[in-house]
Amino acid sequence: MRRRASPGLPGRDYTPVITPNGETLPFRIVDGVKVLHLTTGEFDHEFAPGLTGKCWGYDGRTIGPTIEVVEGDRVRIYVTNRLPEPTSVHWHGIILPSGMDGVSGLSQAPIPSGETYLYEFDLNQYGTYMYHPHYDEMTQQALGMMGMIVVHQRGERRRPDKDFVMLSSEWRIGIGTSRPDPNEMVDFNVLTFNSKAFPGTAPLVIQLNDDVRVRFGNLSAMSHHPIHVHGLAWRVVATDGGPIAPAGQWPETTVLVPVGTTRTVEFTATNPGDWAMHCHMTHHTMNQMGHSGVNFVGADAARIDAATRELLPSYMTMGQAGMGDHAVMGMPVPRNSIPMIGREGPKGYIDMGGMFTILKVRDQVTSQADPGWYADPPGTVARRAGRAELERDGVRDL
Amino acid sequence: MRRRASPGLPGRDYTPVITPNGETLPFRIVDGVKVLHLTTGEFDHEFAPGLTGKCWGYDGRTIGPTIEVVEGDRVRIYVTNRLPEPTSVHWHGIILPSGMDGVSGLSQAPIPSGETYLYEFDLNQYGTYMYHPHYDEMTQQALGMMGMIVVHQRGERRRPDKDFVMLSSEWRIGIGTSRPDPNEMVDFNVLTFNSKAFPGTAPLVIQLNDDVRVRFGNLSAMSHHPIHVHGLAWRVVATDGGPIAPAGQWPETTVLVPVGTTRTVEFTATNPGDWAMHCHMTHHTMNQMGHSGVNFVGADAARIDAATRELLPSYMTMGQAGMGDHAVMGMPVPRNSIPMIGREGPKGYIDMGGMFTILKVRDQVTSQADPGWYADPPGTVARRAGRAELERDGVRDL
Amino acid sequence: MRRRASPGLPGRDYTPVITPNGETLPFRIVDGVKVLHLTTGEFDHEFAPGLTGKCWGYDGRTIGPTIEVVEGDRVRIYVTNRLPEPTSVHWHGIILPSGMDGVSGLSQAPIPSGETYLYEFDLNQYGTYMYHPHYDEMTQQALGMMGMIVVHQRGERRRPDKDFVMLSSEWRIGIGTSRPDPNEMVDFNVLTFNSKAFPGTAPLVIQLNDDVRVRFGNLSAMSHHPIHVHGLAWRVVATDGGPIAPAGQWPETTVLVPVGTTRTVEFTATNPGDWAMHCHMTHHTMNQMGHSGVNFVGADAARIDAATRELLPSYMTMGQAGMGDHAVMGMPVPRNSIPMIGREGPKGYIDMGGMFTILKVRDQVTSQADPGWYADPPGTVARRAGRAELERDGVRDL
Repeated sequence: MRRRASPGLPGRDYTPVITPNGETLPFRIVDGVKVLHLTTGEFDHEFAPGLTGKCWGYDGRTIGPTIEVVEGDRVRIYVTNRLPEPTSVHWHGIILPSGMDGVSGLSQAPIPSGETYLYEFDLNQYGTYMYHPHYDEMTQQALGMMGMIVVHQRGERRRPDKDFVMLSSEWRIGIGTSRPDPNEMVDFNVLTFNSKAFPGTAPLVIQLNDDVRVRFGNLSAMSHHPIHVHGLAWRVVATDGGPIAPAGQWPETTVLVPVGTTRTVEFTATNPGDWAMHCHMTHHTMNQMGHSGVNFVGADAARIDAATRELLPSYMTMGQAGMGDHAVMGMPVPRNSIPMIGREGPKGYIDMGGMFTILKVRDQVTSQADPGWYADPPGTVARRAGRAELERDGVRDL
Repeated sequence: MRRRASPGLPGRDYTPVITPNGETLPFRIVDGVKVLHLTTGEFDHEFAPGLTGKCWGYDGRTIGPTIEVVEGDRVRIYVTNRLPEPTSVHWHGIILPSGMDGVSGLSQAPIPSGETYLYEFDLNQYGTYMYHPHYDEMTQQALGMMGMIVVHQRGERRRPDKDFVMLSSEWRIGIGTSRPDPNEMVDFNVLTFNSKAFPGTAPLVIQLNDDVRVRFGNLSAMSHHPIHVHGLAWRVVATDGGPIAPAGQWPETTVLVPVGTTRTVEFTATNPGDWAMHCHMTHHTMNQMGHSGVNFVGADAARIDAATRELLPSYMTMGQAGMGDHAVMGMPVPRNSIPMIGREGPKGYIDMGGMFTILKVRDQVTSQADPGWYADPPGTVARRAGRAELERDGVRDL
Repeated sequence: MRRRASPGLPGRDYTPVITPNGETLPFRIVDGVKVLHLTTGEFDHEFAPGLTGKCWGYDGRTIGPTIEVVEGDRVRIYVTNRLPEPTSVHWHGIILPSGMDGVSGLSQAPIPSGETYLYEFDLNQYGTYMYHPHYDEMTQQALGMMGMIVVHQRGERRRPDKDFVMLSSEWRIGIGTSRPDPNEMVDFNVLTFNSKAFPGTAPLVIQLNDDVRVRFGNLSAMSHHPIHVHGLAWRVVATDGGPIAPAGQWPETTVLVPVGTTRTVEFTATNPGDWAMHCHMTHHTMNQMGHSGVNFVGADAARIDAATRELLPSYMTMGQAGMGDHAVMGMPVPRNSIPMIGREGPKGYIDMGGMFTILKVRDQVTSQADPGWYADPPGTVARRAGRAELERDGVRDL
C-alpha cells in the first residue's frame, strides 16, 4: 500500500470554496482519515420569502453541506438515515471501489430508516463532483436530496481568489401547497440555485480583477440549464470527468450544464458592476405564478380575475399589455406561494425569479456581505434621449 | 483614452452577412460614432404561406434587423418603444458598462411606452451576439422580439465567401388563432429559423467550394436545438464567448445550439446538391397540425374525422398507415393555420415543416436568388432496383 | 476515377463492434462492392419482460441491424419496403451524392410499399453514423425505425479491445396498449438503449484493463440524453462529424448525446466492478408506471388504490414514504405493462428502469455472456456502522 499524504487542510492546502446560501460540511481527522457525517431528514425550507417547502435533505438543509476535501485524502463518511424510507448515497464522479458506489441493490443494501451506514474510500483525483441518493432517487432528489463535492488539487499552483459552488435543481410545488411533487416530468415551477429562487439567492460578491472559479452542478430531474452571465465571458475548464486541456476550453457567456454533470468555469473579473447570472430558459427565471396563468395579451380581461379567483385561488390573468405590470401591482397571492416576479432594484422593479442571481464586482471587497447596488460612473447608464441628440443624430422617433 | 479606430465599412472592412428572410440594420456615422435606431412595435408577420401571427418585434420585423458592426467601433443605439408596455434591450454577449446592459430595474429604468432611450458603448471584441428585451422578457421574446449582432474582426485575414445568420425560436399559436401564447412552456407548435417556418424559409444559396460561415443563435424559450446538415460536416469555431482554439473545434454534422447561445460553424462547400438543414427533433420539423392530432396508426379511422371536425375544427386523424399521406391529401385546414407538411419538391412531396431549410450548393452562383432544384448527375439517385440487379446481387425481396 | 481499396474484412481490417441486444447486418461482396439488404416491416418487439410493442423496424428488429463497413468501401444497399406506407432511408452523417441522401421528395422519390430501392455510394470517411427514414419520419422513428452505421478507419493503428454500439430512443406506449404513439412530444414513458428498457438491457461485459470504445447515438424524438457512467471517466473522441483532436477531447463521466448526433467515448477499464451506466434524467431510468401515477408522499393513501383501479387500471398511488417500496411490493399491473422499477440485484432490489444498463468489468472475460454479479473484495462495501466505530470517530447518530 502506498504511503498516504497527510490530510489536506484549509488555508495551507486550499482556499475554501464559497457555497452561496449554503455551507461546508465539517470534518475531524481520526488516525489520518477525514471523518464526515451526513444525516438525512425532513424539514421546512424557504425557497424565497413567501415560499416554504416540506423538503428532504442532509443535515437539515437543501442543498446539503458541500463536502470539501483534498486529492490524496482518505475519507470515512457516516450516513445516518432519518427519512421514513431507505436511502443510499452515490458519490457522483468519484472513482472508488464498486461496493462504495451507492447504487442500492447493486453496490450495497439500502440504508434502512433509523440506521447509520459507513462509506470509506481514497480520493485519487481532483475536481468537482456531486452526491445524491441512488435509492428511489426520482423522489428523493425531487424533494431536495443533493449536494456538491469539491476535491482540491493537492499542491495547486494557481489558486483562484474566489471559488464558488452552484448546484441547480427544479421542483414542482402546486400553488398553495408545500410538498414538492416527484411525479412532475415537465412543468417545473420552482427553479433554483443551491435550492434558492430569486430574490432568495445570495449575490456572488467579487473583488475587481479577482481570478474567479465557479463550479456549476446540475441535479435537476430533466432540464439541461444554460447558465448565462452578463458583462463578461468565461472559459469552461473542467467537468466531473476531469480538467479540460487549455486548447479545448471553450469560451462562453452561457455554459450549458447538462443533467448529471458539473461544469467549472473561470474568468478574471475585469468589469465592475452588477451582473445578472441566470438560466437563459425564459420560464426558468420566473417563479410559481408565471407557470399557472392564462395569457390575455391584447384582450380586455379586467373583470375576469376577481370572479375566477373565487373558484380557483391560483387564477390570475396575465396582463393585457404583457406581464411586466405584475411586478408592481401588488396583487394578493394564495398562501405559501410567490408571484412570478422578483424584487425592487436600484432603477425599478427587477421582474426576474427562479434561477437568477447577481455577480457584484466591486473594488475593496472584504467579505460576501451584500455591498448594495453598483454606483455607475456618470454617463454610463442607458437613459431617455434628448431632443438635441435625436436631431444631431438624425433619428426620427415620431 | 485610447485612440479609436475609424468606423468599419462594408467591403473595405468586412464582407456583409446574409440574414435569410431578414435584413441588416442601416447606420449612419456622426462624429466617428455609428448611430443606429431600433423601433419596437406590433405587426402582422407571415411565418409561412397560410399562417400569419400578431407579433412584436423591431422595425416592423421579426427577427429584428441584424446589427452589423466592426471591432473597435463605438455605437450609439436609439431605441424607440412603440409597444403597449415598457421594454429594454440587453446586448447579449457584449462586454460593456453595467448601466448599458439592459436589465430592467438593475442596469436601467425600463423604457416607457412612447419614449426613446439611448445606449452608447464601444465594441472591444468580435463575434456573434444577440439582442432581446430584459423587461417582461418571457412575453416579449415569445412574441418575436429578438435579433442578431455581428461584430466583424477588424482586419480579418481570411474572410468567408458566404456568411449567414440564423436565429432559432419557438412559438405557440393555437390553431385558428394569431396571437403567440407566452405562457406555453412545453408544447410549441411553430418552430422557426429567422422567424420563418418551412416552406417559408429562404434557401441558403452557396457557390461550390465556397468557404462558408453560419452564425447560429437560439432565443427559444426552452429548447436547445440540434441543427443538422446533410451532405457535409462543419467545425464549431466560435461561441458568443469568443473564438474556439483550432484544436478545440469539434467537427459536427449536428451542432447543438443551447438556449441563449450562439454557435458559429464553418465549412467548405465541396459537395454540390440540395442539402437539408434542420433541427433534428422530429417535432420541430413539423408545422401546427402535427401538434394537435390523435394518432391512429393501424386503426380504421375513416369515418371519425368528418364527424369530429364539426365539433372541433382542428381535429384530424393522423393516418392509419402513418402520417406521410397527409402531405398530399389536400385536406381542408382551419383558417390561419398550416398543415404539418411542407411543399412539392423535385421528386415528390417534401413532408417537412418548421425548422427546415435547404442549402443549395451549385456551380456559377451569383446571388441568393433561388436557383431551382439540383440537377443530379446520371446514376446518382436512389431508385427502384431492377430484377437483373437483384439476381446478380443475390437479394431476395419477395 | 481513383483505384478503390479492396473491401474491408472483419478481423483483417477491423475488430467487429458489439451491439448489445442487437446484431450486425451481413453483407456479400459482388464485383468488389459490398452488397447489403434491409427490409422494413412491422413486428412484435419486447422492450423488457412484460412489455411488448407493435413496432416498425428493419429485418424484423428494432434497433435495425448495425451496418458495419470500412473506409474506402463501396456499398450497394437494397431497401425492401414492407410497411403499409412509403419510406426512404437517410444515411445520417455520410458524405454522398445528393440523390443518395434519402430525403423523400427532395433527394429521391419515396419507396412505395412493396418495392425495393437501391442506394449505392463510396465511403470516403470513417466514424459512427446512423440510418433512419426521411419520409414521415416522426411516425416511422417513433415506431422504431433506426439503426447505427459504423465505418471503421482503414488501417486503424490502435484498435480498441471492445467496441460497443448504443442507440438511444424514447417511446410513448399507453398503459395496457402496445402501439407506440408518434404524436407524443413530451411525456415519453419507455426509454431505451438499443430499443431495450432495463431490466431488458444486456450488460456490457469488459475485461479488466481493456481499452474500450462506446459509440453512442441518439434518435429520440426530443430528448438530449446525458449518459452517465459510474466508477470511471471517459474521453469524448469523436462525433458524427469526425474525430476530435486530442487536445479538444473533453473528459466526462456524463456525455451529453444530443438528438441527431453520435458521441464516441473511450476509456481504459482499470476499475473492476458492476458499474451502472444510465441516462441521468431521473424520469428516464423509470419504466411506464412511474409516468402515470399520483404522488402521495406524506399522506395516508392506503384505501385509495383499490377503489380507483376499478375505474382506471393504470392507477397506482405512489408510496406515502417515497417510491422505493414499489420495487418489492409486487403489486398487480395492467396487462402488457411494466412497473417503474427494475430487478432483484445482489444486495437487494435495483429500483431502476428505462435507459439503465451495467458495465461488468472483470478479470478473465472471454465472451459477452453475463458473468453474474461482482464479488467485492472484503471491506469494500458500504455497511452498517458499528457502535465502536461511531464512538472512535465521535459520530453522534441518536
